[in-house]
Amino acid sequence: MTTDPAALTAALIRCPSVTPADAGALDVIAEPLAAAGFELTWVDRGGIRNLLARWGDKAHPRTFGFNGHTDVVPIGDEADWTHAPFGAEVEGGTMYGRGACDMKSGVAAFVAAAIDFVTDTPPDGAILIAITGDEEGDATDGTVALLDHMEQAGEAMSVCLVGEPTCPSEMGEMLKIGRRGSMSAWFTVTGTQGHSAYPHRANNPLPAMVRLMDRLASHELDTGTDHFDPSTLAVVTIDTGNPANNVIPAQCTSCVNIRFNDAHSGADLSDWLRTEAVEVATAFGVAINVQIKISGESFITQPGPFSDLIVAAVQAETNRTPELSTSGGTSDARFIQAHCPVIECGLVGQSMHKVDEHVEVAHIHQLKGIYTRALRDWFA
Amino acid sequence: MTTDPAALTAALIRCPSVTPADAGALDVIAEPLAAAGFELTWVDRGGIRNLLARWGDKAHPRTFGFNGHTDVVPIGDEADWTHAPFGAEVEGGTMYGRGACDMKSGVAAFVAAAIDFVTDTPPDGAILIAITGDEEGDATDGTVALLDHMEQAGEAMSVCLVGEPTCPSEMGEMLKIGRRGSMSAWFTVTGTQGHSAYPHRANNPLPAMVRLMDRLASHELDTGTDHFDPSTLAVVTIDTGNPANNVIPAQCTSCVNIRFNDAHSGADLSDWLRTEAVEVATAFGVAINVQIKISGESFITQPGPFSDLIVAAVQAETNRTPELSTSGGTSDARFIQAHCPVIECGLVGQSMHKVDEHVEVAHIHQLKGIYTRALRDWFA
Ligand SMILES: [Zn+2]
Ligand SMILES: [Zn+2]
Repeated sequence: MTTDPAALTAALIRCPSVTPADAGALDVIAEPLAAAGFELTWVDRGGIRNLLARWGDKAHPRTFGFNGHTDVVPIGDEADWTHAPFGAEVEGGTMYGRGACDMKSGVAAFVAAAIDFVTDTPPDGAILIAITGDEEGDATDGTVALLDHMEQAGEAMSVCLVGEPTCPSEMGEMLKIGRRGSMSAWFTVTGTQGHSAYPHRANNPLPAMVRLMDRLASHELDTGTDHFDPSTLAVVTIDTGNPANNVIPAQCTSCVNIRFNDAHSGADLSDWLRTEAVEVATAFGVAINVQIKISGESFITQPGPFSDLIVAAVQAETNRTPELSTSGGTSDARFIQAHCPVIECGLVGQSMHKVDEHVEVAHIHQLKGIYTRALRDWFA
Repeated sequence: MTTDPAALTAALIRCPSVTPADAGALDVIAEPLAAAGFELTWVDRGGIRNLLARWGDKAHPRTFGFNGHTDVVPIGDEADWTHAPFGAEVEGGTMYGRGACDMKSGVAAFVAAAIDFVTDTPPDGAILIAITGDEEGDATDGTVALLDHMEQAGEAMSVCLVGEPTCPSEMGEMLKIGRRGSMSAWFTVTGTQGHSAYPHRANNPLPAMVRLMDRLASHELDTGTDHFDPSTLAVVTIDTGNPANNVIPAQCTSCVNIRFNDAHSGADLSDWLRTEAVEVATAFGVAINVQIKISGESFITQPGPFSDLIVAAVQAETNRTPELSTSGGTSDARFIQAHCPVIECGLVGQSMHKVDEHVEVAHIHQLKGIYTRALRDWFA
């Protein structure tokens, strides 16, 4: 059988599935999966459609998992696009449209690979395809809902490939075997307003703020670990909004964003941030409020047999040896890592979330080839 | 003769002379001054009315000067006032209205003192009263215009009393013999915008900004001089306006305000600020633009015969020994100090620029008494 992943990608792009809308996207893949013998379970939660498609025994100890999302980010101003954002137009071998690289092509590639694989060479094992419509949104009712359902139903993946785009510029150059954690902290420093001619009657919050931010920004969190770049802290904004240069303001706010590797946890870093704030608040006699949100902890799938197998599949299809990277932003792999080894392997992500998002049609076929080899070698 | 300074104050308050409007205020004093033999010169510039009133010879080497302003700041929300802001209502010995303490009462007191003095005991010398309608505004076409005119006309004051309110809470407790200088500097730090997950591809301006502001705010400019408190630097605002915690901003701005004593000049401090900015810009690899505005240099009328004479007059009228202070914001004395010794001597300033601005009627008479003694003793 030769299911065409490019045709499937085009059909998905034509569904304007901007989170939380599904717009028929999941039906596009549900139909051929069902026809190929996959058992479908709809896991809807919080107004989001999610699809679990299983081939083979629910209790089989060897279950290969795929994960992806069919929702997309908004198109922005349609006038900026040179191709219809939901048209899937192909020009010079390139397909255009929102979700073309992130990640309707990835979903299409593994769905096509799985359908052909179970049809042509039914394995001794199971395949579980978990697709969500809530990755670009809050991600609270998407892959998490699917994993919750699987746990309750006694279903599990032995390994999981996530089809997100992972290559900076060339097909095959990078896999993601983990991600740094991400957290943000908001600081509000409060003093006492006053006239700048009489600073002793006021209590300026700004000297404390700049001292605290300088301490945080100049602190070396670590120098990197085996598979991770050094953790980074970025002061992303400081704001006062005081228009009068003869007035000392009462309050100032700031926000820092931390991307951290496996040398840290969100809790440890929160403790550190609060301690620094208390020390500066005490030294300057001001009040400092700290609000922290941990978006995700760092995680890693240690290099081993699973990553060797994916690397070999990429090498065979692209003639490139992919780097095992932990760079970049967060993805749903952060939820899956608690359940089984997870690796992200996908297309070139350069145009993701941008105007004129696009994908080389040849790359979609190449990606299907990589996924097909991964299935064949893993079940061999 | 006994010209009533309280009646004159009330008449002035009833003119809504919010800068740059004169609203008849200068005519209120021009009339009795002319009647007492003062020669009036109107020095209008930039839409502002200013009045120079002279008694005695233009070329006389002994000329006592008075300076003040009849313009007032806006009233804000009239509903917040418990008395009509331009009503000059008296209740329990207190007169209410905009300008009641800053400084229609001061102008009325020295105009009344001068009229009675020249009428009762014509001195061997001259009196020059310089009153502007542009002190609360830009102050570019006010006392400066009067001083420019005097220079061209070959007129000069030997000494000058400014009638601004100078007492923090009790009549007679403070004179101002100088003022700190004032300047502001605006900093713009420019880096390169980027995603906070990839800080090495961006160039965050904020670490440089907080380092620079920390260096400036924690630097001790001096520990005070003979007649001055320590100079102060206040960081009054830092602003970025970046709403996205996953974005490193391209630019950040800040403003600092410096009040400096006679250990510094605006030029020296400007050099220091620019040097600090260059050092931080170099260390962090960012661009830092610095804009500086010097509002006024510091100045001092050294304690001596003139201040001794004013102190004695205050002691005689109030039974208090006034402190010779250099505290507070700027006043037109900063322009006069280049021409002759200048001292500020006036009322309690607590309610200036506030809702329900007011003055004790008894204090207006007391202030006239101080000015009368000053004239008598100086010409003696
Ligand atoms: Zn994605
Ligand atoms: Zn004033």
